[in-house]
Amino acid sequence: MISIVAKFTVKQGKETSFLQLINELGEASRAEAGCIEYILHKDLKSNSVFCLIEKWKDQAAVDFHNNTPHFTGIVPQIVELAQAEIDVYETI
Amino acid sequence: MISIVAKFTVKQGKETSFLQLINELGEASRAEAGCIEYILHKDLKSNSVFCLIEKWKDQAAVDFHNNTPHFTGIVPQIVELAQAEIDVYETI
Repeated sequence: MISIVAKFTVKQGKETSFLQLINELGEASRAEAGCIEYILHKDLKSNSVFCLIEKWKDQAAVDFHNNTPHFTGIVPQIVELAQAEIDVYETI
Repeated sequence: MISIVAKFTVKQGKETSFLQLINELGEASRAEAGCIEYILHKDLKSNSVFCLIEKWKDQAAVDFHNNTPHFTGIVPQIVELAQAEIDVYETI
């Protein structure tokens, strides 16, 4: 299983637009066959730091996801609104 | 639900000791009533970067966990072997 931790520090005042985009991306991503889990979180100590914790069946599922229209269409818009730190892990 | 992302960059040569401690901590932590999930990962690109992705029922469960003998006994040993970056999130 592949887990992705995507931490977003959102620019001030852009939280609402960010959440709209991330929810749109989440809905489409969860519908993918290889998606096990796709959960949005907020940092306990900050209203502008969010984190997607995603679980994917395998690397092929991640590769497929990264080439979907929703990913390629929405992620560039998200990166305009937030600084992203992406870590990709495998379970051991 | 509270999710904790604990990223560890382990000192060179200390991976085996680190994994022994983290597995001991994981076994005891998963047995706690408030623990939903406690999964150890390795970074895809590095053999010395690991990540615990933990899910807890609520903040009370996290507070209980942080005061258990296994946490207070093992975590100080782990911090000797690895640089830890801990992020705490709530689902939204």
